[in-house]
Amino acid sequence: MSVYTPVSESQLAVWLKNYSVGALAALEPIASGIENTNYFVTTAQGRYVLTLYERLPAAELHFYLELMAHLARHGIPCPAPIADLGDRYLSSLNGKPATLVTRLAGASLENPGAADCAELGALLARLHLAGRSYGGYLENPRGPKWWRLAAAEVQPFLEPQRAARLEAELRFQAQHRYPELPRGAVHADLFRDNALFDGGRISGVFDFYFAGIDCFAYDLAVCANDWCLVDAERDRRLDEAKTLALLGAYHAIRPLEAAERDAWPVMLRAAALRFWLSRLHDKYLPRSGVLVKVHDPEHFGEIIALRAAPGAPAPWVA
Amino acid sequence: MSVYTPVSESQLAVWLKNYSVGALAALEPIASGIENTNYFVTTAQGRYVLTLYERLPAAELHFYLELMAHLARHGIPCPAPIADLGDRYLSSLNGKPATLVTRLAGASLENPGAADCAELGALLARLHLAGRSYGGYLENPRGPKWWRLAAAEVQPFLEPQRAARLEAELRFQAQHRYPELPRGAVHADLFRDNALFDGGRISGVFDFYFAGIDCFAYDLAVCANDWCLVDAERDRRLDEAKTLALLGAYHAIRPLEAAERDAWPVMLRAAALRFWLSRLHDKYLPRSGVLVKVHDPEHFGEIIALRAAPGAPAPWVA
Repeated sequence: MSVYTPVSESQLAVWLKNYSVGALAALEPIASGIENTNYFVTTAQGRYVLTLYERLPAAELHFYLELMAHLARHGIPCPAPIADLGDRYLSSLNGKPATLVTRLAGASLENPGAADCAELGALLARLHLAGRSYGGYLENPRGPKWWRLAAAEVQPFLEPQRAARLEAELRFQAQHRYPELPRGAVHADLFRDNALFDGGRISGVFDFYFAGIDCFAYDLAVCANDWCLVDAERDRRLDEAKTLALLGAYHAIRPLEAAERDAWPVMLRAAALRFWLSRLHDKYLPRSGVLVKVHDPEHFGEIIALRAAPGAPAPWVA
Repeated sequence: MSVYTPVSESQLAVWLKNYSVGALAALEPIASGIENTNYFVTTAQGRYVLTLYERLPAAELHFYLELMAHLARHGIPCPAPIADLGDRYLSSLNGKPATLVTRLAGASLENPGAADCAELGALLARLHLAGRSYGGYLENPRGPKWWRLAAAEVQPFLEPQRAARLEAELRFQAQHRYPELPRGAVHADLFRDNALFDGGRISGVFDFYFAGIDCFAYDLAVCANDWCLVDAERDRRLDEAKTLALLGAYHAIRPLEAAERDAWPVMLRAAALRFWLSRLHDKYLPRSGVLVKVHDPEHFGEIIALRAAPGAPAPWVA
């Protein structure tokens, strides 16, 4: 349960008077999500999500909210922030920065097939193209600089073998950087539970609170490592049909470059390293007073090993 | 049929490559609308309306499109313009300024009841409040200056009695101006066919191409003269229940001022005069080559007479 800051109906009814969305009809806490407090809000006008930000700095919040607004007005199905009567997306509620965004229809898929991966790939390509005209800048907050900080913090908790693997992987990434790859605004956390499907079509992507400026291919690699596994529990190799569907649909809209193909195996390992590290951090250095569902870090430890294995298949479009 | 500039599927498919809305799935001309060429457009991503502007000046178009974008991001259910990959709302198609906007769900009501008028009133109040932070400026293009220009053009076609009535009405309005009334962005053409309802709730307002800066009470009067008649064909007096529902729901969200109450009978006549004049103009000075359904001007000629009659009831909230 991830409601850190409770909001009552009467508090919200007053707060909503500063918006143009009509009177409050219903308020329902959302259990999922580990970074913020979220509620479903229904008003006379429509369905929204209320988010109270528990720890994100205001400068980053503006990047995320303006990015969502930018993408939404380009037709990307993502939460559109609602401006208040003072024309601001970011307000304050119960002492926390807070925002109201549109609620998307649809449900997440636990076991996406190749056709679903193609839907995702096409949407990600459109998102990357639409984001090119976005003027905001925030370096991927979970990029290489953060890897090194997080690694230093978790190393004391790791047994020697795992510590050595982590060290080796950081060294491998440091030796394989691709500053020339196409870059722009990336979601960087587009796991299955951050996308919605409705009638077989992708109907929304959300949770942009790890977004930043990074390589487009890295964003694809984050998706591949979560959406395209043979079996998320038992066989974490990439399924060729799903991976080719993801990449092929993406490529049809934003053609991938030769340099992105060359970097693809490294991107897959970088994307796995980022989540290995954050899960290790959540496990060994949990925030006090915060009840977060801890995901097994070794899911990604194993993905790194599989992607790094000699002869590991890394399917790629022709 | 109001398609002045035909667009083929292949032309549109190419044009849409400059947007992030996915591939074209269907294209369907829209028969209604008298100012622009409109098509329903369905893509892999969603449902849109494509508009080619036949005669609106670019400066006015920017006011309308930015106003719609502003209102949409405040939660007002109106068409949201989709930005292209160059981050512009206004593009060009077949030699005409063109734009893509979101398509709203719902259907227009021919015979709205008091509850529907209340829905409209609440939405109009929210729209007026949300518009207060809009920075664009365009004087109502069908305001008093235009009345005098249009009147001069239609007077030669009118028989003496009607010409005298028009002259008298213009004089009456000139003697009753209210520069102190609350003003802001108004729709100014919110007839029944420019609003959509879905499941008893108002689900959208559209056709902002007569919007401008004017008195909020004038916008309400335009609505009252179309939505709140006892019978639109046979008895054009204001129905008290519908009018009070419209005004009461509005008043609950943006409290009306005493000055607006004083001006209400004049606003009702001003709102009728504007449409009497435009319908006279459409009838006697039709644009060449344009097939426009001509509405009977005397519908509004009679409304003016009824609103001006001694003792005419002009229902108002307490």
